[in-house]
Amino acid sequence: MVDTAERAAEQSRTSTPVVDAAEHEAAAAAAATAPAGAAPHVDVEALGRQLLGTWAEVRLASRELSSRPELQKVEGLSVADHRKRVFEQLKLLVDHGQVHRAFPKAVGGLEDHGGNIAAFEELVAADPSLQIKSGVQWGLFGAAVLHLGTEYHHTTYLPGIMSLDVPGAFAMTETGHGSDVAAIATTATYDPESREFVLDTPFRGAWKDYLGNAAVDATAAVVFAQLVTKGVNHGVHAFYVPIRDANGDFLPGIGGEDDGQKGGLNGIDNGRLHFTGVRIPRTDLLNRYGDVAEDGTYSSPIASPGRRFFTMLGTLVQGRVSLDGSATIAAKLGLKIALTYGDQRRQFTAGSDTDEEVVLDYQRHQRRLLPLLATTYAASFAHEMFLHKFDDVFSGKTDTDADRQDLETIAAALKPLSTWHALETLQEAREACGGAGFLTENRITSLRQDLDIWVTFEGDNNVLLQLVAKRLLTDYSRKFAKADAGALARYVVVQAAGKAYHGSGLRSVAQTVRDFGSTARSVNWLQESATQRELLTDRVATMIAEIGGRLRPASKLGKKAAADLFNSQQNELIEAARAHAELLQWEAFTEALEQAPDAGTKQVLTWLRDLFGFGLIEKHLAWYLIHGRLSPQRAQAVSAYIDRLLTRIRPHAVDLVDAFGYGPELVRAKIASGAEAERQAEARAYYAARRADGTLPTPEKAPSKHR
Amino acid sequence: MVDTAERAAEQSRTSTPVVDAAEHEAAAAAAATAPAGAAPHVDVEALGRQLLGTWAEVRLASRELSSRPELQKVEGLSVADHRKRVFEQLKLLVDHGQVHRAFPKAVGGLEDHGGNIAAFEELVAADPSLQIKSGVQWGLFGAAVLHLGTEYHHTTYLPGIMSLDVPGAFAMTETGHGSDVAAIATTATYDPESREFVLDTPFRGAWKDYLGNAAVDATAAVVFAQLVTKGVNHGVHAFYVPIRDANGDFLPGIGGEDDGQKGGLNGIDNGRLHFTGVRIPRTDLLNRYGDVAEDGTYSSPIASPGRRFFTMLGTLVQGRVSLDGSATIAAKLGLKIALTYGDQRRQFTAGSDTDEEVVLDYQRHQRRLLPLLATTYAASFAHEMFLHKFDDVFSGKTDTDADRQDLETIAAALKPLSTWHALETLQEAREACGGAGFLTENRITSLRQDLDIWVTFEGDNNVLLQLVAKRLLTDYSRKFAKADAGALARYVVVQAAGKAYHGSGLRSVAQTVRDFGSTARSVNWLQESATQRELLTDRVATMIAEIGGRLRPASKLGKKAAADLFNSQQNELIEAARAHAELLQWEAFTEALEQAPDAGTKQVLTWLRDLFGFGLIEKHLAWYLIHGRLSPQRAQAVSAYIDRLLTRIRPHAVDLVDAFGYGPELVRAKIASGAEAERQAEARAYYAARRADGTLPTPEKAPSKHR
Repeated sequence: MVDTAERAAEQSRTSTPVVDAAEHEAAAAAAATAPAGAAPHVDVEALGRQLLGTWAEVRLASRELSSRPELQKVEGLSVADHRKRVFEQLKLLVDHGQVHRAFPKAVGGLEDHGGNIAAFEELVAADPSLQIKSGVQWGLFGAAVLHLGTEYHHTTYLPGIMSLDVPGAFAMTETGHGSDVAAIATTATYDPESREFVLDTPFRGAWKDYLGNAAVDATAAVVFAQLVTKGVNHGVHAFYVPIRDANGDFLPGIGGEDDGQKGGLNGIDNGRLHFTGVRIPRTDLLNRYGDVAEDGTYSSPIASPGRRFFTMLGTLVQGRVSLDGSATIAAKLGLKIALTYGDQRRQFTAGSDTDEEVVLDYQRHQRRLLPLLATTYAASFAHEMFLHKFDDVFSGKTDTDADRQDLETIAAALKPLSTWHALETLQEAREACGGAGFLTENRITSLRQDLDIWVTFEGDNNVLLQLVAKRLLTDYSRKFAKADAGALARYVVVQAAGKAYHGSGLRSVAQTVRDFGSTARSVNWLQESATQRELLTDRVATMIAEIGGRLRPASKLGKKAAADLFNSQQNELIEAARAHAELLQWEAFTEALEQAPDAGTKQVLTWLRDLFGFGLIEKHLAWYLIHGRLSPQRAQAVSAYIDRLLTRIRPHAVDLVDAFGYGPELVRAKIASGAEAERQAEARAYYAARRADGTLPTPEKAPSKHR
Repeated sequence: MVDTAERAAEQSRTSTPVVDAAEHEAAAAAAATAPAGAAPHVDVEALGRQLLGTWAEVRLASRELSSRPELQKVEGLSVADHRKRVFEQLKLLVDHGQVHRAFPKAVGGLEDHGGNIAAFEELVAADPSLQIKSGVQWGLFGAAVLHLGTEYHHTTYLPGIMSLDVPGAFAMTETGHGSDVAAIATTATYDPESREFVLDTPFRGAWKDYLGNAAVDATAAVVFAQLVTKGVNHGVHAFYVPIRDANGDFLPGIGGEDDGQKGGLNGIDNGRLHFTGVRIPRTDLLNRYGDVAEDGTYSSPIASPGRRFFTMLGTLVQGRVSLDGSATIAAKLGLKIALTYGDQRRQFTAGSDTDEEVVLDYQRHQRRLLPLLATTYAASFAHEMFLHKFDDVFSGKTDTDADRQDLETIAAALKPLSTWHALETLQEAREACGGAGFLTENRITSLRQDLDIWVTFEGDNNVLLQLVAKRLLTDYSRKFAKADAGALARYVVVQAAGKAYHGSGLRSVAQTVRDFGSTARSVNWLQESATQRELLTDRVATMIAEIGGRLRPASKLGKKAAADLFNSQQNELIEAARAHAELLQWEAFTEALEQAPDAGTKQVLTWLRDLFGFGLIEKHLAWYLIHGRLSPQRAQAVSAYIDRLLTRIRPHAVDLVDAFGYGPELVRAKIASGAEAERQAEARAYYAARRADGTLPTPEKAPSKHR
């Protein structure tokens, strides 16, 4: 590791001259909050322990597994060979006892839900295909039997699932229905004569599709279908269905197709399944939330079909939890590569006749990568909070309806942000490494290709954010439920009056600025946690209130007109949900500051949190201006603060990615191995020697008139 | 094709209720500009002809070639097999006379520079590897011999290059130097005794790297090296160097490595080359811009080494021209797939009990894809302008120094925007197609993986934009060169005074709003071309003036401090360059409106241009607010206008992608083949029949207390 104190001192010596008033103020403010004297130092090891969180040992054990060559991705394999390799790797996971954590003690599990997810997430560093295929087997297929089935299914099926004797598919999505699971068209019709369910996919769109394990390996599947008995459709239920015989041939009535090559994750055999009059015993309905008696009578512990459906789906939330965590790990790997390389690579002389500039010293390079680093820290801390919430619910520690709803809302909020963030980060890392970033040996493109589908599976990101928005709207309406009927309307009118009904709008904005723009307040104002929180919270609340007001007439409209009104607000709704999710991340980051191991590390993390917070405010700056929350002068200071933070964080960039704890055996990128540093040293030594012995040819002199 | 008039009428019937004052104004304004009576109709064929542009016939012929299976990408090949296939495809291009257009008539060419680029660009639809490998052979290796060599080299080498008898590499980039070509470390030292140049790569960072053709196929290369004679380094020059013998073995002193698998473009054999005391005849210096006499005396028609270097590099601008065009074609293919699918795919019932909504009718789906469609049109029209400029210069029609400089600035401005746009568009198209978008059979991921490196090669996008910014700064300074020394400073002070030095900033902003916010002016104001132009132009000019002002002290600073000052403005500089490039695209789109084939098509194109223009203004809304160019009220209206435009353009979305002219033989995506429409029709017919004959099971009723 490079001496960061020296680097910080160097950085401070060469900091940019103050060039305007706003910058000047920002510099003064920043200097005021920095500890007097020496630049802060990051305790990489201690910060690393903080990042590992509650399930540190499980994570470290899983990383140890992920660092074994036999579990790692081999690039350039054919689709068939990659699939074979990953299937064999799943067996190694079984051998290592990696996959049993979440299962009941009665069948040899540990009933450790949080630890199970933590271990699973870390496998992404070995091969995302291995991770996701193990997720299909144990996190989807196995978890559906566990959470939707009852004791008979647990004792009968879980042992074979856990041992991989029965590889299985999770047959929910259909070609025609991905996001709208309630509308799937596969049916399971109860036949009281034979006491069997009969499964059918009545048309092409009803084929199950994109199912991991389905193309080759699965011998069974949990199939989601509309349960029909006595002429009534009781909605989507899950069924345990054998699909292939010992030779790997489809059982009668079952057929399928291979989804073929994909944009990534080619170690997984995704495929399609269809069913024509396939009969299974009545008892293979996974009957925890709904059952059919021998005579065909349907019963359920949950009376409302809607609530029953969401309860069943809610048991499968762990997929979103683990994608949130593993996407963040992928972002960490990308930044570890790009920032290590950026700290060694040099290009162009600028401030010297001989030495080229280190690429990461360029402002643009910092602007491209350091905000992504800040967001990665925010996502990492938010994930730890999320995983605790998940563990609390699934361990039964705090498992009320409200807890489950909160968990699902957090899942629907964080999974979109972290998975999009991973793609953005890997792409920026790729570009920041130039041509070297494009070589598969440097890993970034491979990770990005595999992670691409993260934004779609386990809930399309846009659809999930819309769920979050609906929850926010519901909560908002509830606030006004006990007030008289006109309260919401009046509230919204008051909200709106301030912004758009007076003349040019400017005067009224000035009035609603409160005293945010007052010069009497310190320029440190924006750096206070309370200010950032107020700005971020206010935006979510105001957006939801505004949308709520606009949707108010919907109750008086017909179905079609109401749908159109809702649709006219869809984009804004999704933006509000994103703002809510960003606030969750910001709160988690801010809370984590209190756990920082020492003052120096805390100082650097606080700068990073500020960079994250200011980044959010800068991204939505127009909103803050339009709504009078920031004066134009303050707004302009936001970007100046960000520039200042970049130069403060830059000397610690390598420490901050080293704290992620991924060593060369997990990073596996040649350009992050120190090879670039060696090349730079060799080149500089060569020129220094030739300058010293006078053998460097002199450059051609420009003719004087051109000089 | 669906009846668009009917669709437009439907859309208009179901348009969203006006929900606030800003929307109301926007709706009124939009209605005012729409032709009375029927919705406009797009003449797809005529618009297609307009998009084909000047080199329509060449493009159509190249598309015909690209539609032949033997020239198309086969997915899932190993790297070795893909490379072999593409090399064989290059021979087919030779057989079809596809590659000779740009070469001199004396050696069998057509001297048709614009047509050559147009034909080349269209090959991206067959296989980007084929396109880029042919670009390496004829556009880089061949073009370097053509533009940097003289008659001896043309007659000696071009025939073998054109016929592919001599496959070659373009050996410019080194592992240590990509963006900073002037700093490459490979040397070519003249030895007057033997009348030879001696080539050396003195250390690992000096190895040539990422060179197409270098790993396997190339038997020769144009090698860029520092020309040293009589102890003086005359800077970078190009040399023709045989590298492999007839058996494919490296010649003495030459070695190399395979770059191996890449994130895409795996039909090209990129590799590394190094040279140790490799001797070539004096006459194999490509000596158009610099020569060495037998006695070692250097001479050049261009006295300034700097200008000489940029002139040599400038002859190779065609790479950037063709990447701009082919990236835009890739974006067109992505949108053709995603919008065709989005117009057929249905998901969730909202406004009906039975019919699911067409995905593209969702506001969010429109927000995701239609602005990208608008930008693609802008990029397409801007490219046509750019290609004309290129053809004018290279045909000699208008080939002054100023023309060459303008051409290079346009190239450096447009190539970054269109290549980033292609990646953004392909990613959004991928996500908009959900899981289907991830399957290789639907093509989007494959295109995106191949296009990834477009943002890096032929000039890293960020580096290119910085070149644009420097040109803008130079032009800006020139304006003030004849004024007295303080004019610029005073100008900048006046600029700055308006925005940040008075109290809270709000009052002074109100003063600088001019009358933009006045309610006396029509709400149509933003829809006027002149307004959009003024806003976009003003932003570029103001940003450059502000940066110019901040950089003013640099002349009085030392080298290091000046470099630091410049670095402190780097991000803003690059943003200013992007604003300039966006303006170029907007101007090209606006100019193209005058060529629209009829009033209806022109109306729809005008909406699309407005969507592009408003999109730019929305993206930079904070800037316009901070600088007092838009009042908060106006600023809020921008987003409302965009929502309105989306509903107006939506009925024409399919027509607008059909006009790109890429049929199924070029699109080659199953989901854009009509398969989704068939599946939807089958499902809807199935349910309709079961409803009609009473065999559809009734849904379980919710218990009354939950209803």
